[in-house]
Amino acid sequence: MSEKIKVAVLGASGYTGSELVRLLLRHPAVEIVALSADSKAGRTMAEVFAQFTPFALPRLVKIDEIDLAGVDVVFCGLPHATTQVVLKKLLADKPSLKVIDLSADFRLSDPAAYEAWYGHAHQALDLQREAVYGLTEIHREKIAGARLVANPGCFTTCSLLPVLPLLSAGVIENDPIIIDAKTGMSGAGRAAKEGMLFSEVAEGIHAYGVASHRHTAELDQEYSLAAGQPVVATFTPHLTPMIRGIYATIYVRLAHGADAAKLQTVLAERYRAEPFVTVLPLGQVPQSRHVKGSNHVQIGVVADRIPGRAILISTIDNLVKGASGQAVQNMNLVCGLPETTGLDQIALFP
Amino acid sequence: MSEKIKVAVLGASGYTGSELVRLLLRHPAVEIVALSADSKAGRTMAEVFAQFTPFALPRLVKIDEIDLAGVDVVFCGLPHATTQVVLKKLLADKPSLKVIDLSADFRLSDPAAYEAWYGHAHQALDLQREAVYGLTEIHREKIAGARLVANPGCFTTCSLLPVLPLLSAGVIENDPIIIDAKTGMSGAGRAAKEGMLFSEVAEGIHAYGVASHRHTAELDQEYSLAAGQPVVATFTPHLTPMIRGIYATIYVRLAHGADAAKLQTVLAERYRAEPFVTVLPLGQVPQSRHVKGSNHVQIGVVADRIPGRAILISTIDNLVKGASGQAVQNMNLVCGLPETTGLDQIALFP
Amino acid sequence: MSEKIKVAVLGASGYTGSELVRLLLRHPAVEIVALSADSKAGRTMAEVFAQFTPFALPRLVKIDEIDLAGVDVVFCGLPHATTQVVLKKLLADKPSLKVIDLSADFRLSDPAAYEAWYGHAHQALDLQREAVYGLTEIHREKIAGARLVANPGCFTTCSLLPVLPLLSAGVIENDPIIIDAKTGMSGAGRAAKEGMLFSEVAEGIHAYGVASHRHTAELDQEYSLAAGQPVVATFTPHLTPMIRGIYATIYVRLAHGADAAKLQTVLAERYRAEPFVTVLPLGQVPQSRHVKGSNHVQIGVVADRIPGRAILISTIDNLVKGASGQAVQNMNLVCGLPETTGLDQIALFP
Amino acid sequence: MSEKIKVAVLGASGYTGSELVRLLLRHPAVEIVALSADSKAGRTMAEVFAQFTPFALPRLVKIDEIDLAGVDVVFCGLPHATTQVVLKKLLADKPSLKVIDLSADFRLSDPAAYEAWYGHAHQALDLQREAVYGLTEIHREKIAGARLVANPGCFTTCSLLPVLPLLSAGVIENDPIIIDAKTGMSGAGRAAKEGMLFSEVAEGIHAYGVASHRHTAELDQEYSLAAGQPVVATFTPHLTPMIRGIYATIYVRLAHGADAAKLQTVLAERYRAEPFVTVLPLGQVPQSRHVKGSNHVQIGVVADRIPGRAILISTIDNLVKGASGQAVQNMNLVCGLPETTGLDQIALFP
Repeated sequence: MSEKIKVAVLGASGYTGSELVRLLLRHPAVEIVALSADSKAGRTMAEVFAQFTPFALPRLVKIDEIDLAGVDVVFCGLPHATTQVVLKKLLADKPSLKVIDLSADFRLSDPAAYEAWYGHAHQALDLQREAVYGLTEIHREKIAGARLVANPGCFTTCSLLPVLPLLSAGVIENDPIIIDAKTGMSGAGRAAKEGMLFSEVAEGIHAYGVASHRHTAELDQEYSLAAGQPVVATFTPHLTPMIRGIYATIYVRLAHGADAAKLQTVLAERYRAEPFVTVLPLGQVPQSRHVKGSNHVQIGVVADRIPGRAILISTIDNLVKGASGQAVQNMNLVCGLPETTGLDQIALFP
Repeated sequence: MSEKIKVAVLGASGYTGSELVRLLLRHPAVEIVALSADSKAGRTMAEVFAQFTPFALPRLVKIDEIDLAGVDVVFCGLPHATTQVVLKKLLADKPSLKVIDLSADFRLSDPAAYEAWYGHAHQALDLQREAVYGLTEIHREKIAGARLVANPGCFTTCSLLPVLPLLSAGVIENDPIIIDAKTGMSGAGRAAKEGMLFSEVAEGIHAYGVASHRHTAELDQEYSLAAGQPVVATFTPHLTPMIRGIYATIYVRLAHGADAAKLQTVLAERYRAEPFVTVLPLGQVPQSRHVKGSNHVQIGVVADRIPGRAILISTIDNLVKGASGQAVQNMNLVCGLPETTGLDQIALFP
Repeated sequence: MSEKIKVAVLGASGYTGSELVRLLLRHPAVEIVALSADSKAGRTMAEVFAQFTPFALPRLVKIDEIDLAGVDVVFCGLPHATTQVVLKKLLADKPSLKVIDLSADFRLSDPAAYEAWYGHAHQALDLQREAVYGLTEIHREKIAGARLVANPGCFTTCSLLPVLPLLSAGVIENDPIIIDAKTGMSGAGRAAKEGMLFSEVAEGIHAYGVASHRHTAELDQEYSLAAGQPVVATFTPHLTPMIRGIYATIYVRLAHGADAAKLQTVLAERYRAEPFVTVLPLGQVPQSRHVKGSNHVQIGVVADRIPGRAILISTIDNLVKGASGQAVQNMNLVCGLPETTGLDQIALFP
Repeated sequence: MSEKIKVAVLGASGYTGSELVRLLLRHPAVEIVALSADSKAGRTMAEVFAQFTPFALPRLVKIDEIDLAGVDVVFCGLPHATTQVVLKKLLADKPSLKVIDLSADFRLSDPAAYEAWYGHAHQALDLQREAVYGLTEIHREKIAGARLVANPGCFTTCSLLPVLPLLSAGVIENDPIIIDAKTGMSGAGRAAKEGMLFSEVAEGIHAYGVASHRHTAELDQEYSLAAGQPVVATFTPHLTPMIRGIYATIYVRLAHGADAAKLQTVLAERYRAEPFVTVLPLGQVPQSRHVKGSNHVQIGVVADRIPGRAILISTIDNLVKGASGQAVQNMNLVCGLPETTGLDQIALFP
């Protein structure tokens, strides 16, 4: 591919935006041609994220200042609800655009589910129907042919990958599935809120959105799809005093005849050829720090001491595999590039 | 009480030891007359813990250098297995001693359970029989008359308090009870281990001892006692990048006819008069940082979106209510003092 | 003293406010009768700071809702500039009030210096003249007779205590004095700002306000007073990823005939009887964590390898000795109580 | 270059070792053929550093198990003193080896200085004479022709780069130069020591090695070389609760006629073409987090409010530009590769 893919990043002043820039700057087949921000339009990227000081990058602009003619792919890191309005217009203006959307706007395929979880009717139902759920390892083929990819949530990615193959294989029961998830603070974004201040969140942990977090809707959708019948899981997220990382501890009940070793085997076989998914030997437990900064997933399976139960543990970097890394992975698919292009970062540990 | 209680702290160079000293130095009815350490014997406490530089304290000595004649109460913060040998000798030498033991050696009343979890026969079976399990709010009366109190584990204290009244009241099922617990690093102690270095544990989270942590044995014992029949829970601890705090997220199934509001009511009523236990209004979630440095427990109850289930959340400071604070609380009982004496520290937040 | 002192805390929803409440709740001679907040008026203190959930406290109100008739002492934790307007009115309404002000408004005795550093004329010049600079160990006698105490800044307290006695004794030169200071994040307050988010400040360090921080004005004033001639110091603060703590590394030049040992002796003698100041043996270095949560100061003196120079190191908890603790210490003086009343907290380490 | 360079990493179980592996695994012209560890020999790299689980790497061996015949370049991350013995033997066995040494053993060119700072005579004086000090931007030409490169210390790299051009240009005085440096904990290595435990170092800061840190010897050597006369600086390192990062705040006196703007200009011009060094506009201050994980240096210059003085601020990642990244940079030079090969990582922020 001699000509580079021209990409625009909308919402470049947020953390998923800066992470996209980090990855795309080193992507051999991509050229960043536009970066948008809202209140920070007019500034340089270096003013907004000083790690980019050494690099040449387009100045931040308002979305309507972007000349779509020179753009092949749009990464959209805008807030929920805004996104559907913006993308509807962009795709009307240039139907040949490819879009990787990092918001929640196009993740639910059922308009009723969307309305129930988000409290208002969807503003772009056609696009919602068209969008492909971008959990790459599961929906790879549909993603490759998509114009609009709905990149999954960070909690969702981490909670789906270890469970979906087990539901499909029928080796775990549909109920209960209990997900106790822990996230680093960058998952809460860059908006200045009292509850996200260093002094408020360092040296402590707490649950939030208990039994009501919106990522749950994605879990319902994908778990049910894999199981072939409705699955409803318990999901509790916790804010943890670290910057990056999602860590999901998932409690499942074994199907008749299955044991933890069987679960490990199903997962290991399912993901054997996957470049970004590592299934650890039975009983071995991953740590979030060992995927930090990379697009990797590590999954562990442990037998409970109580017969008939097992514990699945999964970890990703919320900004990479949980957002911008998977977005680039999806762009690679959409654009016909090898899926790992530009995603060879190794985890930064220590 | 004009005469002060003379206390010795064994194992004063560890974190539960220093925390005892922090509390006892400000306890109006206590005089610290001896501090022991092993490899650090001979040093001053200020050399080992510089926060004590402004205070006069006995020099660290070996245990056998302590003159028991001048000691009324011993706090024992020695390692598991060593403890039973040391205490057997001390109590033989001076049977009138009162002992608050912070190790695991006397927590299990069943010798077979001890042997199963710790891999060797107990060396002081008489004392094991005599010891009272020191979960103050539950076993207050027996503690008041005890000579040897087995202070509960930190995870255990945090996981028992929100569950025991519910089992006793029959408002939750015995199974499944799934405890996803998170601890600060000080729970791992002060021994120099690679896995506890700052660079290894900051900026990440991981589970450990999955389905095999020894505190589980205490949970079995106390849950079963409260339920009046054998209860076996799933327990997964996680190491979190904070110094202090235990945070237990507990998934339970409601008994027929009960709902989350009922659980909150049972707990609120059970603990209404307890000075150190706060049961939050239904749906409100505690944070570990709001009990840091204090002997307080905060408990929340949240309804799951799945009918028939609820989520209990409980948090303590592992070094205070989870160890040294509860130890002082128990000493107060044993010595006939008001239970809150010397324990009026308010949580240090931020 | 049978009757308790009735205190109001203005600005109770900020960190110095919550720290005052933490200390005053345990102060044996004080009753908290009013708490004010601005945007958070109407809420309970527990809603704003959940560590106070177990305690009975007045609801947060607007300042003008406070009935001054029932107030003996006001602690004022309001923002700069607002403070002078508010206090002018309060003291006009009730001249017998005692006020401990934690803002910067009354720290500079020279109106011209105030105007130069703060960019506007002072609105309460009479009070500025009246106010006593509340560095307790240095101005104890004047504080005891004061109606309005201007509590020093956190950096200032930490940077003045190790230097003033040396300037007074003439054992160091006036120039250069270079202060490289590091602060925990709580010093930046509770206002929601992007730059204070956990993800922005964890895992990194940076200087700010280099050569322009307003606390420098206080240093000039007090250094010059002690030296008996104008002293101008270099001062560079740094934001450090910890919640609490000020750590000042101070580079000084020895006066003719002096050496580092002499400096240590001067300081040790000067502070021998001070309950909150510990001067370490020559060559020993303090750590900020060993004063965390306490009103203590630890000071070290180290000889440089370069003849004629020495390094002073001083550390405090910015919210305690650097703000609310010293405020209570000053209130004790003003009210004729023993200076250490209610300030017996031992540092929370680990 | 069709044939890959075959490299061995000695001391791969330490942090500089793992960081070398992180960089070299993605270096297009390199093949890792051997990894040594001492007590951990026999294990896989994934067992020792789980971030490498997805990658194929040689098993850890003892040094004498390495077949030098198949090795072109050795990176040596062994402890001080051991290094000189090991390298003497290796270079005797295979004189054509290229060695990039990350220890302190060959950094001082003067045997007397070595003996004074390290307390024993050097065991490989010939090699000490031969070794080239590997501060790439300063000694690039000599490094390109070297067989043995002594990679500089982390503090040293950070403290030399902003100062050397100013000394050479004569725009600052030789005395005083006061360096107040802050380091992340990974600089202390992976050896299990009580003082490096999370609970000991989180939530606090402290100085160490005041006026005696061995990196000072390197500063003396290089500063004096640049100034053309003996220069002796004051150097105080601090341990900061972050994993990575060096932050040096350097206080200098301006030469007659110079001002801070002049300093900024000298540095900006000196480093204009350097791919890894960014000199910020006058008055702008870098943050350590903005170089984390990258080989970049950011340098700021600020005028002091006191005439005749300026403040230089410099920051690097101690494990990259301060160790393994600069080591790869030096290897590139030694092997005739473009200097930036394999070093295109962008800082990981947030």
